[in-house]
Amino acid sequence: MRADIITIGDEILIGQIVDTNSAWIAARLGEIGVSIRRKYSIGDRREEIVDALRESMRQSELTIITGGLGPTKDDITKRVLADIFNSPMVRHAETYERVERMMAARGIAFNELNKGQAMVPECCTVLANHKGTAPGMWFEQEGRVVVSLPGVPFEMEALMTESVLPRVREFFVLSSVVHRTAITYGLAESMMAERIAEWEDALPPHLHLAYLPSPSQLRLRLSAYDVEREQAEREIEEQFELLMPLLGDLFVGWGDCTVQSAVAEMLLQRGETLSSAESCTGGVVASKFTAMSGASAYFMGGVVSYDNSVKEGVLGVKRESLEQYGAVSEQVAREMAEGVRRLCGTTYGISTTGIAGPTGGTPDKPVGTVWMAVATPTHTIAKCVQHGKIRAVNIERAATAVINMLRFEIKAKN
Amino acid sequence: MRADIITIGDEILIGQIVDTNSAWIAARLGEIGVSIRRKYSIGDRREEIVDALRESMRQSELTIITGGLGPTKDDITKRVLADIFNSPMVRHAETYERVERMMAARGIAFNELNKGQAMVPECCTVLANHKGTAPGMWFEQEGRVVVSLPGVPFEMEALMTESVLPRVREFFVLSSVVHRTAITYGLAESMMAERIAEWEDALPPHLHLAYLPSPSQLRLRLSAYDVEREQAEREIEEQFELLMPLLGDLFVGWGDCTVQSAVAEMLLQRGETLSSAESCTGGVVASKFTAMSGASAYFMGGVVSYDNSVKEGVLGVKRESLEQYGAVSEQVAREMAEGVRRLCGTTYGISTTGIAGPTGGTPDKPVGTVWMAVATPTHTIAKCVQHGKIRAVNIERAATAVINMLRFEIKAKN
Repeated sequence: MRADIITIGDEILIGQIVDTNSAWIAARLGEIGVSIRRKYSIGDRREEIVDALRESMRQSELTIITGGLGPTKDDITKRVLADIFNSPMVRHAETYERVERMMAARGIAFNELNKGQAMVPECCTVLANHKGTAPGMWFEQEGRVVVSLPGVPFEMEALMTESVLPRVREFFVLSSVVHRTAITYGLAESMMAERIAEWEDALPPHLHLAYLPSPSQLRLRLSAYDVEREQAEREIEEQFELLMPLLGDLFVGWGDCTVQSAVAEMLLQRGETLSSAESCTGGVVASKFTAMSGASAYFMGGVVSYDNSVKEGVLGVKRESLEQYGAVSEQVAREMAEGVRRLCGTTYGISTTGIAGPTGGTPDKPVGTVWMAVATPTHTIAKCVQHGKIRAVNIERAATAVINMLRFEIKAKN
Repeated sequence: MRADIITIGDEILIGQIVDTNSAWIAARLGEIGVSIRRKYSIGDRREEIVDALRESMRQSELTIITGGLGPTKDDITKRVLADIFNSPMVRHAETYERVERMMAARGIAFNELNKGQAMVPECCTVLANHKGTAPGMWFEQEGRVVVSLPGVPFEMEALMTESVLPRVREFFVLSSVVHRTAITYGLAESMMAERIAEWEDALPPHLHLAYLPSPSQLRLRLSAYDVEREQAEREIEEQFELLMPLLGDLFVGWGDCTVQSAVAEMLLQRGETLSSAESCTGGVVASKFTAMSGASAYFMGGVVSYDNSVKEGVLGVKRESLEQYGAVSEQVAREMAEGVRRLCGTTYGISTTGIAGPTGGTPDKPVGTVWMAVATPTHTIAKCVQHGKIRAVNIERAATAVINMLRFEIKAKN
């Protein structure tokens, strides 16, 4: 069972945006046992869409198309689909009403362009898009399926999860596949590979290990293909039990867990609270917690003390500490964490102060130097990390590093 | 003059990594007037590589291949190229010596796998890779060019810049292409299309307009292909001059500009400063400024007042206001903006307080309700926006909305 992904849109083709949709779709399809034969990226031009779609339909049982469905006139995907499936365009009443309600709720006029979004080829099954105006469409022909989805990532993801994946499972006879993913934090891919090499070499041949790195964590996924599900699940669990002593505190959780969600869960269980004092991370630590629904139960607030006057005036960092050690120092990190903990009246206070770059480094404190601290009811700990030269990477890594430092500290109390 | 990009590698196809190479290559080729017809992503399988390469060579004058050149055995790209160009594999002496030196410098044994990297199809021109072991290869056949590059981004980028782009310019007669992009904020794609429909319809046929939406702004790009550069630049400028009165304050800037970079520039010019008080946006407003290098010159800091105790204790919001109007109210937004402006001693203070969702809404204040305020030296303004039900979207939109509110306020002072 093979699938193709076709992403439509000049913005991808000219390199203005990086296509993240197709990696997401490929990963989700892989989880249910569908392998990808080929991905295409093409422009908003009729003949390119026709060519790619016809080629794909000759080669693969499933074609997922994203993009090319917006309201403006350069979007011609739907008309191409109507022609290929030899089906007239009709107005889909539910979509029409849904888009009308969405526009009304936002106080936007329901104009001709929006009305056009409710027109679909008659032969398709409409997949309701609850997050945007362009409907998803499901076409079947001689045992093959073509699915057209909007290119906006969160609309596409919701449609895939709610409609497309369940339908694909129902329509095709899929070989069974079992995955389980352990989230780790703290070791790079090559060092992790070295640490767990013996365990990896001893895996039975029908279990496959994948290293899935991202800027702030490393996922280890074990997969079994074409196997009896219960036995495979048992085997995978046994292998992870063998792995756990090698991972130790590097193990964060399973599946979609993150360092911050692991911390959130521990705080909720204990009825404890948190506040943050950020310099170089500039709000990213706070935003990682507040991005999660329910954060108000444990995250009281934070201070972005970018200027030294705010460190001193709001957080109570001593002027002598700033003058003697500099803003990027162990002493200032400690006083920031203790200051915000006191100010917000929380169980824990965490802080970052560093040089995000690309400028501002010195021989003593090069770009990427970050001091972090965690203040608890009984003591304060501090640590220095050294990342690279790229501002966005330094900010992201420092934010995750201080949250992980708090994770260790809470775990150590057990 | 059209080109294709083929990225080879299972890790892209299964969604393990996001392909950033092809966007980079497409952008660089676009700058020298080469437009991309299609991108392919395929696995490390011989037949897939042969199929994609033959298809591409039938359709496009230039094919850039990345990946499939590493030392391990699943990399078969070179052998496919040797077959397609009917050329024997030979050892390339310079590459052999270069790889031998690199291995010695790193203290790594020069093994058979590494020696294999010096084998190339005889007919190609080797492009020296100074950053890695796999050589780049340039093939010519009947006026068409195929280039094979390693998949490691910094190796690929160096080879493109140093060797491939100069050779492409020399080999092909390139038409010129001119792009210019206006950044707008405040109107959705469909409403913008309606507003500028007459202008768009009157564009000369050789100028192409693209709507490039993102969650927080809408870019309008005018392109001219196959034209005399100076004349095209003049024409595009004239068209944008006609467009400006239709855009008014919706126009943010050119090219890579964002709402926050436009504000940053105005603050820097005026020597003015900013602080932020965030509830529902939870640090995202601050992080949008601190993500930009040089933010410390105008962004003094901020408070994430997630809990009411922080609104009251740190920002000085009155308890009566919180009790009488609720945390999500005009009164509280005003007191937050004024409070943080006073606390941080800045020219402006901006605030957000709202219900990010998905829970927490009431009939009076449904999910997505956000009050925002801007405090200036002379007065404070407040505004309510109503977004949707999705937490991440509400946070992103509210953060950009309050920054844009500040942009209007600073501009209005002129």
